[in-house]
Amino acid sequence: MTSLVFRWQMTVEFGHCDPAGMVSPKRLFEYFDTGTWSLFETALGIKRADFLTTFGILPLVDVRLACRKAVKFGDDIEVASRVAAFRRSSFDVDHRISVDGELAVEGGETRVWAVRGKESPEKISARTIPADVIARFG
Amino acid sequence: MTSLVFRWQMTVEFGHCDPAGMVSPKRLFEYFDTGTWSLFETALGIKRADFLTTFGILPLVDVRLACRKAVKFGDDIEVASRVAAFRRSSFDVDHRISVDGELAVEGGETRVWAVRGKESPEKISARTIPADVIARFG
Amino acid sequence: MTSLVFRWQMTVEFGHCDPAGMVSPKRLFEYFDTGTWSLFETALGIKRADFLTTFGILPLVDVRLACRKAVKFGDDIEVASRVAAFRRSSFDVDHRISVDGELAVEGGETRVWAVRGKESPEKISARTIPADVIARFG
Amino acid sequence: MTSLVFRWQMTVEFGHCDPAGMVSPKRLFEYFDTGTWSLFETALGIKRADFLTTFGILPLVDVRLACRKAVKFGDDIEVASRVAAFRRSSFDVDHRISVDGELAVEGGETRVWAVRGKESPEKISARTIPADVIARFG
Repeated sequence: MTSLVFRWQMTVEFGHCDPAGMVSPKRLFEYFDTGTWSLFETALGIKRADFLTTFGILPLVDVRLACRKAVKFGDDIEVASRVAAFRRSSFDVDHRISVDGELAVEGGETRVWAVRGKESPEKISARTIPADVIARFG
Repeated sequence: MTSLVFRWQMTVEFGHCDPAGMVSPKRLFEYFDTGTWSLFETALGIKRADFLTTFGILPLVDVRLACRKAVKFGDDIEVASRVAAFRRSSFDVDHRISVDGELAVEGGETRVWAVRGKESPEKISARTIPADVIARFG
Repeated sequence: MTSLVFRWQMTVEFGHCDPAGMVSPKRLFEYFDTGTWSLFETALGIKRADFLTTFGILPLVDVRLACRKAVKFGDDIEVASRVAAFRRSSFDVDHRISVDGELAVEGGETRVWAVRGKESPEKISARTIPADVIARFG
Repeated sequence: MTSLVFRWQMTVEFGHCDPAGMVSPKRLFEYFDTGTWSLFETALGIKRADFLTTFGILPLVDVRLACRKAVKFGDDIEVASRVAAFRRSSFDVDHRISVDGELAVEGGETRVWAVRGKESPEKISARTIPADVIARFG
């Protein structure tokens, strides 16, 4: 488990919620995604749009999410994201969403450190994650 | 045109963009929606979740959007929202999205000041917008 | 107004609706988008994914939408899309969503017939719409 | 594992894909959600909108997704959904998305058989899944 944690706060919007008044899981995964990009921006000191061209595209291979309590319209949430593990060419990011300081959603992503082929951009292949990238996460 | 303007800044996320790398219109309407809720929260001093039960549901009856220039992944945007006109039971909200201080998207919504029936909540009916609500927008 | 109309039927999903139980406008624009791609696929006899590389990227410059009645979770809707007007390098698509044969939503898009630069793909420029493309829409 | 499988085919839309040209995970969860509603509609012979009032709201408590291969714009996909296990008041739904007959995405949901309180609709509580409901899934 790395030590760098990216936290941000937001209010759950009307349009993020379903007819039951709860945030839909698809939106929770968007919060996770924002967390991962922000975490890497913070760690690497590179803007997210440049990150893409500098390093790769970070495709998701695996996501998972468990709801402890409902997250509802108007809730003020905090999302905390951190890299749980780096492997050779993939890594896990853990995300926790809390409402009023209480854990509401736990989730995780597994992403691949990937690059597009220069000649054939539709070919995506995994690369070893540079050691100095990993070092930035503490 | 009322004088109260709600402005907020955000970064366009990867997941907000389409394969052309541009924010899709559906997402721009989400930015508008956030702007409208925030504007009313600011004007009325009531949290958005309470606003719903206090006043009504503000259904959209009309939205429109014109793109002047593309909004792309990683762009730092500013959204500015203000009520353009109040009528008896409906009102128009204007939204402007700018990138680096330059206008990129202009749009508008027409919303109805509506309440749900107490007995039959599926019945939504328009109500006169209270004068003291309108007064809050300057 | 061209004569070719693309129609398709679908059921409004739970996840397409907001806490008021109504389809959110952002989703209605997705229905429109599907209609436009399907209409062009039908007219030109080219799969949508190939269309992109063959012709251009069809960015939206303008969308608008007016709700006549609410579209709700579980509603069986029909979307009908047709090109309302072709101009030199842009065109308008009209969309009508009906529930039980009754018009519920009217909307439109203005799109540009655009190509990406071969050397600098971030440059998008408008092109004259080929006459034989227009002819396909009747 | 129950025997009833709901399958449907669709084309991946432009607006379902991210700047890497791949379907975003949030959208894959929407496909899953559509699969679950359709599966229950088929098994129980009740329209999805009525299902909500008849039985409960089926909140998700857990979702997971693993990508075997990228799903891209224009891909013709098949989604197959089936209940993997029924427990007292919750159940698992498995989803498999294939492209050209090849498995591309595997995922699952755990949902609770829940009802809203009649007096206080914000209280959601789990209920025993009726035996005759389970029987419908083979």
